[in-house]
Formats: sequence, structure tokens, C-alpha cells
Amino acid sequence: MRTVVVAFGGNALQPPAGGAKDSAVDLSSAAAAIADIVKDGHRLVITHGNGPQVGYGLMRNVWAPNDVPRLSMDSLVAQSQGELGTLLGLALTNMLAARHLSIPVVCVVTHVLVDVNHPSFTEFIKPIGPVVSDADVMAAIKDKTHLPLTEERGGYRMAVPSPLPLKVFESGAVQALLERGVVVIAGGGGGIPVAYDEQSQLHGVTGVIDKDRTSALLATELDADSLVFLTDVEGVYRDFGTSSQQLVTEGTWEDFDTMVHDPQASGMGSMKPKMAAACDFVQRTRHPAAIGNLQQAARVVAGLAGTRIVWEAKEERQHAK
Amino acid sequence: MRTVVVAFGGNALQPPAGGAKDSAVDLSSAAAAIADIVKDGHRLVITHGNGPQVGYGLMRNVWAPNDVPRLSMDSLVAQSQGELGTLLGLALTNMLAARHLSIPVVCVVTHVLVDVNHPSFTEFIKPIGPVVSDADVMAAIKDKTHLPLTEERGGYRMAVPSPLPLKVFESGAVQALLERGVVVIAGGGGGIPVAYDEQSQLHGVTGVIDKDRTSALLATELDADSLVFLTDVEGVYRDFGTSSQQLVTEGTWEDFDTMVHDPQASGMGSMKPKMAAACDFVQRTRHPAAIGNLQQAARVVAGLAGTRIVWEAKEERQHAK
Repeated sequence: MRTVVVAFGGNALQPPAGGAKDSAVDLSSAAAAIADIVKDGHRLVITHGNGPQVGYGLMRNVWAPNDVPRLSMDSLVAQSQGELGTLLGLALTNMLAARHLSIPVVCVVTHVLVDVNHPSFTEFIKPIGPVVSDADVMAAIKDKTHLPLTEERGGYRMAVPSPLPLKVFESGAVQALLERGVVVIAGGGGGIPVAYDEQSQLHGVTGVIDKDRTSALLATELDADSLVFLTDVEGVYRDFGTSSQQLVTEGTWEDFDTMVHDPQASGMGSMKPKMAAACDFVQRTRHPAAIGNLQQAARVVAGLAGTRIVWEAKEERQHAK
Repeated sequence: MRTVVVAFGGNALQPPAGGAKDSAVDLSSAAAAIADIVKDGHRLVITHGNGPQVGYGLMRNVWAPNDVPRLSMDSLVAQSQGELGTLLGLALTNMLAARHLSIPVVCVVTHVLVDVNHPSFTEFIKPIGPVVSDADVMAAIKDKTHLPLTEERGGYRMAVPSPLPLKVFESGAVQALLERGVVVIAGGGGGIPVAYDEQSQLHGVTGVIDKDRTSALLATELDADSLVFLTDVEGVYRDFGTSSQQLVTEGTWEDFDTMVHDPQASGMGSMKPKMAAACDFVQRTRHPAAIGNLQQAARVVAGLAGTRIVWEAKEERQHAK
């Protein structure tokens, strides 16, 4: 039985703008794709982002009356794991039930070790919360959160440090649940960032961990058979956005690693972190990774759609036989 | 190896009033008590309340700017599970590490089935959030939350329905983790209340489940060897608050059931729900329950302190041998 780690972004879990209730999020297509994977008999771990939600959590936090305790960023990440874990878990449970599959789906609150001395803690590069353009709102956000704003898609978003994950504390628990046939939701929002202090005591730290890296790390720790990033595009394109753009269907991790580090490789902004995380997983496990469209999840997992990142090229694999 | 379910209230996880950061919560005594239990070789499940925290979450929610999505009550309960699960989990992990015990502590996001047609859904009896006395704050809370306020300790708190739990969806997962030697945090805040709609789809519903009942239900489903409620008093007192008050050290579930239903039994306000839940567990499993002081947790678990609720009286047990 294969173990598959499937990662998808926080945007997929976000309702349409305009203050809609979270129950309005349509997760049926995501859940259907995931149900396909489970139905194919794979052990499944689901990871997800929390960029929009943790930002909204921060805004609720700083706008509350003075007597309401302020939560730290790691507490807000923890809250988002509960919030999104149940949203995703119920959607998937319902979808499985509709297919007469009685498979438990369980969300594990996940802690991830980070290195507080790493330079990433001084770089506010991870955008969270909504895209805002109203000058008054932007000023209020800056005033209340003390976070820098970063430009994105016709507006600005709050930005926080995005440390790299070093260790997932709950991977043993995830493994135990997988062996019992549970579909596990873990590593939400990249995990709750924690670090050891000088007394070897663990405590939460401020930041939102790179969720793609956490997915790769968890997949590595589980020795997963594959790691799949589901997004809203078909996969990795060469010359994306030009008339000659072309989907890359397969390449070695070294090929993709070269692209990640090529400053000339254009139009890959949001894809590069996924490619880097995929390379990391393939390099460490020799198992394949894939990047593809959420709507084609089952085909991406089967290697029939999207972009595959492999240990060695096809001819080398054939040669080795 | 014995399985022990230990329940404690949301107040124990709450920082002192005045807007302190949640990291300021001193959980060392709670964690030390719990570490004692683990050290004694018991399988341990921890449940906890969320009354103060879910109320603060609601206030953050309704005070946020209009563009920030409003979360439903079940999402707020889910958030509180993440928030408090990590708070408690890290405190316990650190305490265990200080005792050179490398035992994983894992928080499972927990969903609990409720009956939306039960009359409890029309009774706003569960107080949440802070105790407020300022008339302006009270008016603002009523205006923004549309919740009734209920009198408590020299002020008022918001009140929500508190349905009874029917089934814990994650008890199989909790059992699997216990068998792997994991200390499990589950059923936080009584669990996320969910119900089936007419299409047999699960969805979250508004309310904060009676956490004592959820602890008893989970303990029953796990066939736990004992259920322990840890509070800030020594146990159940007869004639509490009078000069003749006396700690009840042991009694049968039928004795306590009589007290719970005796409107003349005075001074037991906050104790009755725990007694009722304990009776329910003992009646269904024949295993003992206990109610005692958090600071004496290990002695309460060992039956050396607090109040024990048993299946049959001592003489009957001896007779049966």
C-alpha cells in the first residue's frame, strides 16, 4: 500500500471575498479529488496552507477590545489548524460517505521545529491575510499589527517571516494513524513553529513556516511513496505566460533544481517554492513528486497529468533494470 | 496498563485577566500533575474546557473589520482546540522532558455528534468569555453577538446552548495513539459540535458541548479504567459552605445520582455537571470515576485523595469476592 502526501494551498480553503461565512467554502471538488485517491487504496496525508486565514486571525486579534487577550502568532497558526482541519475534514468525510466509503479522517495538531537564529526570521516575505488596497485600511493594519505590507495582485498584504522546518514532532503519530487506515490532515499552515530555549524548553515562535517545505519534510519523515502539490495550474511550464509556454511533464530533481536557482527562469514565482520542496523530497527519498491541478488530483497522483519530478531520468531507470 | 481520562476546565488554561499574552499562562502545576500520572505508567487522555477562550474568540470575531470573514461558533470551538491543544501540549512536553521522559503528546481535533432537535439547543445556559460588569461593554457585546448575558460572580457572561454529546468521531484514532504510547489531548471544549442534515451530510452547529459529558462519553468509548475530573476544590462536599461541610471520599454512582437530582443539595452548582458525567461513566462501564484537586492529580488518580464514584459500595465489592 502506497503512502501519498498531498499538499494544497490555503487559498483553496478560503471563501469568496466579502465577509461570507466559512461554511460557504465550496470544497466539494477538492474533497472529490482526494476521495479518488483514497478509493485507489492509498494511505493519504493531507497538508494545507493557511495564508489567508492566519492573516484574518491576526486582524481579529488586533481589532478586539483591550480586555480580550492578544494571541501570539504561533497560537494563531494553531487556531488555523483547528479551523481548517475541521473544514477540510468534514468536507472530505461527507464526500467519502457519499461514495459509501467509511474511512475516518483525523486532523492532528502539528508542531514543527525551526531555527530561530536562521536569517529567515529577519525576512518578512510570507504574505498573509487579505489583499487590501484602501489606504485607510492599510494604515490601520500597519498601525495595529506593526507588520510590513508587501505588494501583491493589485494591492498589499501583511508579511511575516517564513522559517524553514527542521523536524515535524507529530510524524510518528501520523504514521500510527495511517497504519490504522485513517486519512490524516497534518502540518496545517506549515505547522506551529516551535524552538528550544536555553533551558531546552519548547516554546512557540512568531512566523508562518513555508508550508511546501513542511509537506516535503513530513513526506520524507514518513518515507512516503510520493508527494503531490495540488494547485490551480496544470503544472510547471517553461516560458510561462509567453506564446511558446510548454508544460514540463517530467524531469529529474536536478533539472528542476537548476530551474529553481535560475534567476532567468520567468513566470515561476509561486511555483518555485513547490519545485524546491519537491526537489528536496526526491533528493532525500528517491521517490517521485508531482505538481498539478487540484481538479485532476487523481490523475496527477497516478502520474497521468501534471509535472513529475523524479530521481533519475527515464533512460537511466531503464538502463538500471 | 490502565487507561485514564483526565478532564480539566478551561479556566485552568486562562491567563490572568488584563490582556496578558497567552504565553503567560502558568501550566507548570497542571503539567507536573499530569506528568506524575504518565510516570506511573498509565495511558493518558487529556480533555479540557474552552469556556473563556471560545468567548474571547467570539469577541475577536465580531469586533473585526467588516471585510474579515465571520466564523461560525463551531469554527471558533475548532480554533480553541488548536490554541489550547498546543498550549497544554507544549507545557506537558516540557514537563515530561524535564523529568527525562520522552513521551509524545499529540492533540487530535475532535468532532462530536449532537442532536439538533434536543431542547438543549434552545437553552442558553453555558457561560463563555470573560465576566464583564461595565454597562457599555455589556451593551456592545449584546449588540454584536446577539447572545443573552447570564449573571456570574459579580458580573455577566455571554451564554450559548450546551448540547449533550452523542458520539465522539475520533475515539478510534485516540485509541490507536494510546496503544502507541502517545499522551493524547482530545475532546477540547467538549468537541466541535456536528450534526447530520437531511442529506446525511455532517455540518458544524452552533453551541458549546457540555465538556464533562464529552469526557465521560470519550472515556466510555475508550473503555477507560478511570475518569478523573480535576478542579480547584478537594472534591464533592456535603453541606458545602456550611460549618458542617464534609468531603465525600467515596460513594456509589447511585448515591451521587441521587445528590445530582436533589434540588435541596446545596452549594454544588459547578460540581453537579461533573457528578452527573461521572455517574454516567460509572453506570455504563462499572469503572470508577473521581473528582479532585488539580494540585493533587496523581493522588486523585491513585484513589488517595478527592471523591471516588464507584459501581458498588465497598461491602458489596468484598461480598462479591
